[in-house]
Amino acid sequence: MSAATTLVALLHGPDQPGLVAKTAGWIFARGGNILHADQHRDLEEGIFFQRIEWEPSAAASASAEADAFREFAGVIGMQARVINTAHRPKVALFVSKADHCFHDLVLRWRASEFPCEIAAVVANHEDLGAAARGYGLAFHVLPVTAETKAEAEARQLALLREIGAELVILARYMQVLSADFLEKFGRPVINIHHSFLPAFAGGRPYHQAYKRGVKLIGATAHYATRDLDEGPIIQQDVARVTHRHSVEDLVRKGRDLEKMVLAQAVRWHLEARVLVYGNKTVVFD
Amino acid sequence: MSAATTLVALLHGPDQPGLVAKTAGWIFARGGNILHADQHRDLEEGIFFQRIEWEPSAAASASAEADAFREFAGVIGMQARVINTAHRPKVALFVSKADHCFHDLVLRWRASEFPCEIAAVVANHEDLGAAARGYGLAFHVLPVTAETKAEAEARQLALLREIGAELVILARYMQVLSADFLEKFGRPVINIHHSFLPAFAGGRPYHQAYKRGVKLIGATAHYATRDLDEGPIIQQDVARVTHRHSVEDLVRKGRDLEKMVLAQAVRWHLEARVLVYGNKTVVFD
Amino acid sequence: MSAATTLVALLHGPDQPGLVAKTAGWIFARGGNILHADQHRDLEEGIFFQRIEWEPSAAASASAEADAFREFAGVIGMQARVINTAHRPKVALFVSKADHCFHDLVLRWRASEFPCEIAAVVANHEDLGAAARGYGLAFHVLPVTAETKAEAEARQLALLREIGAELVILARYMQVLSADFLEKFGRPVINIHHSFLPAFAGGRPYHQAYKRGVKLIGATAHYATRDLDEGPIIQQDVARVTHRHSVEDLVRKGRDLEKMVLAQAVRWHLEARVLVYGNKTVVFD
Amino acid sequence: MSAATTLVALLHGPDQPGLVAKTAGWIFARGGNILHADQHRDLEEGIFFQRIEWEPSAAASASAEADAFREFAGVIGMQARVINTAHRPKVALFVSKADHCFHDLVLRWRASEFPCEIAAVVANHEDLGAAARGYGLAFHVLPVTAETKAEAEARQLALLREIGAELVILARYMQVLSADFLEKFGRPVINIHHSFLPAFAGGRPYHQAYKRGVKLIGATAHYATRDLDEGPIIQQDVARVTHRHSVEDLVRKGRDLEKMVLAQAVRWHLEARVLVYGNKTVVFD
Repeated sequence: MSAATTLVALLHGPDQPGLVAKTAGWIFARGGNILHADQHRDLEEGIFFQRIEWEPSAAASASAEADAFREFAGVIGMQARVINTAHRPKVALFVSKADHCFHDLVLRWRASEFPCEIAAVVANHEDLGAAARGYGLAFHVLPVTAETKAEAEARQLALLREIGAELVILARYMQVLSADFLEKFGRPVINIHHSFLPAFAGGRPYHQAYKRGVKLIGATAHYATRDLDEGPIIQQDVARVTHRHSVEDLVRKGRDLEKMVLAQAVRWHLEARVLVYGNKTVVFD
Repeated sequence: MSAATTLVALLHGPDQPGLVAKTAGWIFARGGNILHADQHRDLEEGIFFQRIEWEPSAAASASAEADAFREFAGVIGMQARVINTAHRPKVALFVSKADHCFHDLVLRWRASEFPCEIAAVVANHEDLGAAARGYGLAFHVLPVTAETKAEAEARQLALLREIGAELVILARYMQVLSADFLEKFGRPVINIHHSFLPAFAGGRPYHQAYKRGVKLIGATAHYATRDLDEGPIIQQDVARVTHRHSVEDLVRKGRDLEKMVLAQAVRWHLEARVLVYGNKTVVFD
Repeated sequence: MSAATTLVALLHGPDQPGLVAKTAGWIFARGGNILHADQHRDLEEGIFFQRIEWEPSAAASASAEADAFREFAGVIGMQARVINTAHRPKVALFVSKADHCFHDLVLRWRASEFPCEIAAVVANHEDLGAAARGYGLAFHVLPVTAETKAEAEARQLALLREIGAELVILARYMQVLSADFLEKFGRPVINIHHSFLPAFAGGRPYHQAYKRGVKLIGATAHYATRDLDEGPIIQQDVARVTHRHSVEDLVRKGRDLEKMVLAQAVRWHLEARVLVYGNKTVVFD
Repeated sequence: MSAATTLVALLHGPDQPGLVAKTAGWIFARGGNILHADQHRDLEEGIFFQRIEWEPSAAASASAEADAFREFAGVIGMQARVINTAHRPKVALFVSKADHCFHDLVLRWRASEFPCEIAAVVANHEDLGAAARGYGLAFHVLPVTAETKAEAEARQLALLREIGAELVILARYMQVLSADFLEKFGRPVINIHHSFLPAFAGGRPYHQAYKRGVKLIGATAHYATRDLDEGPIIQQDVARVTHRHSVEDLVRKGRDLEKMVLAQAVRWHLEARVLVYGNKTVVFD
């Protein structure tokens, strides 16, 4: 809403007295105006978390203030990410054949729900090419087989570097990214997958859920890590199902859940509301 | 609400043409009046399910009609349970120290939400004795240790037989019933337990969920089977949690979920709305 | 999923003994096979409702069977709609400038979620023309002003007649259809609108809800009637909001609700699951 | 959970730069340790809100620190409530005949969910006397008729003064408190009532909702004001209903909603998480 540049810092580190006063005091002393500040302390682990958004002094350069804050955070023992909200990060969408998350994300982006640029759509199949180009998006097909996976990932990494991608969204990409890829990319990757109570191992989970007669199906959005589907959870939701729902109904309801949960996770990430530590997130919603 | 006796039949068996016509025709021909009829076909497995509730002819004896329907069901290849809704089954509540599900169930029962008699409260600890007696309920303490478990179960079975229990509700009983107990009792046992996405093995699940940063916690009510926590699911629900919730908050929210989910499952069971086949339920809600 | 033609009947009329037996018996006697049958009795008003889906005998013509059933229904005192599920009704989408429901409906339709043909997109503004044509849909702009409303409605009616529209979906059309239009069209019109607890009269409801500090916002899909926003309710849902949500957030969450609720209502309508009587629906979901 | 005394301040006033730094700095300078701090700015109205919880210096008296903070808040232009979390306020429950909210609140209180004392149960009917006394609670019957209302309210006020009540909870009290009563009591009164989409005026709302075929029923907890049912909303929730639910089912589901929503509102109030301004709340949950 505001034309002014604002900065958002996500901090965490060992808890100690006076942290709220120190960060707020630092900003105030430099002529900044705090718009939002949200703190959390994990009392079990003794960790302090903060999301703080402020307008830096009109006299200062935003990037210089961001650098200064990072330095200050180190002095008080905190790790900090500082984001300039005027910056619109480049995002790559990884897709396969399923199009529901793809269309949903692109339409929300066009409706100004996501402060980012969609710099590329990367696919292992041709299926979504026409739709992507119809939206005016660059579409790259990089087929992946067991034999060519290493090579395909190398090409994906080269592409991500070339476009300056700061985030990858796996919009039902259906391929596991290697630990090597994740390490080399070195930036966040958000994934969406179905979730059930109880959990089902193996393939065709909606069929398994149907056979087990579950009353709820779910979806979980999380950051991708080496252990697939085990990364820090950003958002989850469920939908109610009954015996009147066929496997096809479960799959359809699952698509709706995946769209909603992934979109919410992406929005929170882009608004710098998600702070990761260990295998857990703090979401300042 | 109605003073009249009604019968409810829960049928299932191999699907075949004409089943709806046959059951409805049988009832109509004998002067009965169908109040509700709900059918379901599992198209994958070729099974027909029906819940049908009717007022038998005023000229007939309800129990004779129930017997006649059971015989008729066998003729058309269906398994059937037939329940007289005027009958209020005897129920035993198994409790331990936690009182939230206990109070919730008893208060709902006193508010006429459950068509049953609570014939006994069976506990492995004294803690809920005063409360049970305050409600005017018979309270039986049968302590259970690893050494005395077989003997305690024998005494529980004797008690259940004595009171004519037709249902056991494990209201946070916290003890695993042996396969031998379940077989000898031979009637339904409903259990409630917490559920998480993802699932957590081992003890202190709320602590594990907290550490993992889950965004939803859940509860599942199911029939107890040999495989603990793996029996047919009757009802499930979830509640949203955030980093602002402590482990204590998760436990408190878990209590609310357990109360609501268990009460709903018990109500459906007592209203003869739950049909079990294999490891799955069809709930005619 | 099935290649076979099936018929669905939606019946209602004065309750009387034997109705389930009569409808099922009629179908069985003519060699039909009932796939689903769901009954409901409104005990307060003494009305019987039924949705029954069956495969007619392979030897019979589906349309002849449908006609025969309608005649039979009249004989037993019931009003009946009978739908051939192989028939894909022509649907007209009415839109204005907002595109979220428009894209959502079209994408679901392309994903085979809706058994219908989208025969026309009718708009009072040009804004969605390119998108509609991009989907390969016929787009008709019929501007509406207070002075031209009667004429515009006449042209809309002519268009609907020409394409044989059997359903109009108001996908955020933002114009009130006159009672005269609804009567002349004579077929169902489904509308979506926001709902709040408490309700707010007047304009800018999200601003009013924000000022009132509501904790839930909602959306309601209903059939359009003379009394705008007062027709029979098909589906409703809500989303939780807090003080941390701005008016823009409420509007965004409202869009998501509108999409989900409208899509569900349209699906139920097209699957012949919605039976209207008086100002109320029975949804056989 | 903590043995240490903590203070909670709820502040609001005209927004201005440096407020976060000032409050945090004041606490830090006096040797206090901030446990939680949550800020909010209403950008439309230019108001700053804060909930801040801290451990005062062990060397200081908590009540002296509370007084000092109040004075400080005035200096920076803020209105402030400061609560000592060691203080357990006296609460009066107002009840009539319905017992669901009564039992629910008392059982939660006994389960240590509410940091308060239930100092009195005030009723206009005898019905809940035995239950209240069974819980060891003081029970006062003050019958209310149109003629005796003023006198009954005077006696209620005298009783509230005598026990030092700091909060009244209307647990389905079913009587409207006069504006005069509210003014003379001068402390918060929390009420629970049903909510529907759309809203229904007049009596027997569940019957009206049933006739209208609503798909959701709701409950709203709010502070009582002169305009009944129009005070600042604290919490709301809904439950899904279908045509299969009778009026009795709606009433039963309504009871569950009322219990959950009222309990949540009371907990938030007692934990000093609810800040009222105008006709709106900010809930720091």
